[in-house]
Amino acid sequence: MSRPNLALVGATGAVGTVMRDIVSTREDIWGEIRLVASPRSAGKTLKVRGEDVVVRALAPEVFDGIDIAIFDVPDEVSAEWVPIAAARGAVAIDKSGTFRMQPDVPLVVPEVNPHAAADRPRNIISTPNCTTLSMMAAMGALHAEYNLQELVVASYQAVSGAGVAGTARLYDEVEALAGDRGIGQVAGDVRKALDNKLAEESPFPAPIAFNVVPWAGSFKEGGWASEEIKLRDESRKILGIPGLKVSATCVRVPVVTTHSLAVHARFEREITVADAHRVLAAAPTVVLMDDPEKGVWPTPAAVVGTDPTYVGRVRQAIDFPNTLDLFVCGDNLRKGAALNAAEIAELVARESLSA
Amino acid sequence: MSRPNLALVGATGAVGTVMRDIVSTREDIWGEIRLVASPRSAGKTLKVRGEDVVVRALAPEVFDGIDIAIFDVPDEVSAEWVPIAAARGAVAIDKSGTFRMQPDVPLVVPEVNPHAAADRPRNIISTPNCTTLSMMAAMGALHAEYNLQELVVASYQAVSGAGVAGTARLYDEVEALAGDRGIGQVAGDVRKALDNKLAEESPFPAPIAFNVVPWAGSFKEGGWASEEIKLRDESRKILGIPGLKVSATCVRVPVVTTHSLAVHARFEREITVADAHRVLAAAPTVVLMDDPEKGVWPTPAAVVGTDPTYVGRVRQAIDFPNTLDLFVCGDNLRKGAALNAAEIAELVARESLSA
Repeated sequence: MSRPNLALVGATGAVGTVMRDIVSTREDIWGEIRLVASPRSAGKTLKVRGEDVVVRALAPEVFDGIDIAIFDVPDEVSAEWVPIAAARGAVAIDKSGTFRMQPDVPLVVPEVNPHAAADRPRNIISTPNCTTLSMMAAMGALHAEYNLQELVVASYQAVSGAGVAGTARLYDEVEALAGDRGIGQVAGDVRKALDNKLAEESPFPAPIAFNVVPWAGSFKEGGWASEEIKLRDESRKILGIPGLKVSATCVRVPVVTTHSLAVHARFEREITVADAHRVLAAAPTVVLMDDPEKGVWPTPAAVVGTDPTYVGRVRQAIDFPNTLDLFVCGDNLRKGAALNAAEIAELVARESLSA
Repeated sequence: MSRPNLALVGATGAVGTVMRDIVSTREDIWGEIRLVASPRSAGKTLKVRGEDVVVRALAPEVFDGIDIAIFDVPDEVSAEWVPIAAARGAVAIDKSGTFRMQPDVPLVVPEVNPHAAADRPRNIISTPNCTTLSMMAAMGALHAEYNLQELVVASYQAVSGAGVAGTARLYDEVEALAGDRGIGQVAGDVRKALDNKLAEESPFPAPIAFNVVPWAGSFKEGGWASEEIKLRDESRKILGIPGLKVSATCVRVPVVTTHSLAVHARFEREITVADAHRVLAAAPTVVLMDDPEKGVWPTPAAVVGTDPTYVGRVRQAIDFPNTLDLFVCGDNLRKGAALNAAEIAELVARESLSA
């Protein structure tokens, strides 16, 4: 097979923008890179690998000659178009929630379960939710040696997880409130000020500037948010632990990009901080930033825009055997989305090239 | 005893300001209310109960004739002055960390362990750390019926927990960065922009605008932050559960006031969401805000400046028996600090009045 042709579907969104950057800066193994978006964005010219490419409207023919198509589009668009791309011969790598939990679609994080990508009866591969992905490289490395059994997770999720509208909203709210040095001290004053100053509806269900919002996704049985259920189900599937116990609380915070997670993880085997440091320092896409006495731990603002999963605040739980508490940061648009999809595409491309 | 005389030591700080408001608006059971602060603030005139009161400099004589003295001062100031006030006959109610874990000093949350306030051999009563306090009314109510055994907590802590300097810093950072609609998307750009624009040193170890910072307090053995250890040790003492298992990760967020906590709590007895709703709805200082399908859960911006502990997102953990996940918000300057101290003072005052 010659150099494979790649289609990026959803090339104009928050993840699509990062995706174009990623395929332009990583090793170039691609033939054509075709940009695809909704008819609204078709005809726009965007840069990929330093060259101008005209965006094409999503249609069955855009997949002709394409070997691999990466989809970053809403669930319902994926549901319709991913099977069309797959039927036309492309390996479809899908970022949406549509196919992730289907038993005949692998859910892949290349550092953790690369083998799963090869078993794709429907020609579809899913890439996980950004919140799950933010911790997978780190937890996968620890699991490989110590056998993970329980996860209790609280998230600190960036606004760009809700797309370009989420990012714009945080900037809008901060601009609207900046300079008011009394804001955030009286119940409801933030909402009232925003209602007065901003005409557009927010993609978030509450003010996000000077606030945290304990909700991400849609309503699920038992009062769970869909993002919390995804974190549980996807972690089980990626790590290959059907009985993994998971509880998560997902919270949106006024950070532009990079999700953080406070993770309480119990393993089958005894594990010390030194053990975890050894494993994490050796994991190729994980960066250990853990020297709290010297003020070293990751924060979103310090690591945003980069590829690795950052881990700090590793502590042996005082009261829980075989358990670590730790803090993880990962760029939700890169490893959490575009980068993981690009890595899967490279995995598939290399497998085809070597076949 | 006639109406007791009250001294507020540290009357000019973030908590002191709220304390003056609280004693001015709650039922007035006090004789004199004396304001005390460092010599630097002495001579200032501040309003209490609608009247101007001149602030006095901290000195042994300021406790003459005082029945109850509330201290909100740094640990080392408490260490020196709390015993002096107690020796001069005042019941000293201390907000600092100095005496909290001493076995002959009760650590009191009036809703949870009011009886403990009466047993004070040194004439000193401690009030808990604001992070612990933010969840105590709720967890105490649940514990009373279901017997709490384990807590895994992740905090979303407001900047005013670090005093007026913390609040000023967040406003400063937001003002310095507002209008830059690309900030927070490149590693280190927030810090660089702040270094260029703000001359003063931050009370936080990293940028707090457009960021979250996984550190609160000082360094403790095993990589723990002092705030995380306080949450463990103080919860055990207040709830009277010496074997309570606790793991916490404390994270500062860009919220002015009101701490939030994601809590994963295992009980001895089976507990459903309906059980928890019943208990929490009946707890006098707890407000249940839990209807996520209708977008009802607490956020800091919605409840700041009010007295109750707010609880939402109550879920039965899917994979953990007898376990709830929930989200709690409490104003760290009110219930988390000034209000709890005022409530202890009222408890002591009423006990004396009825003696």
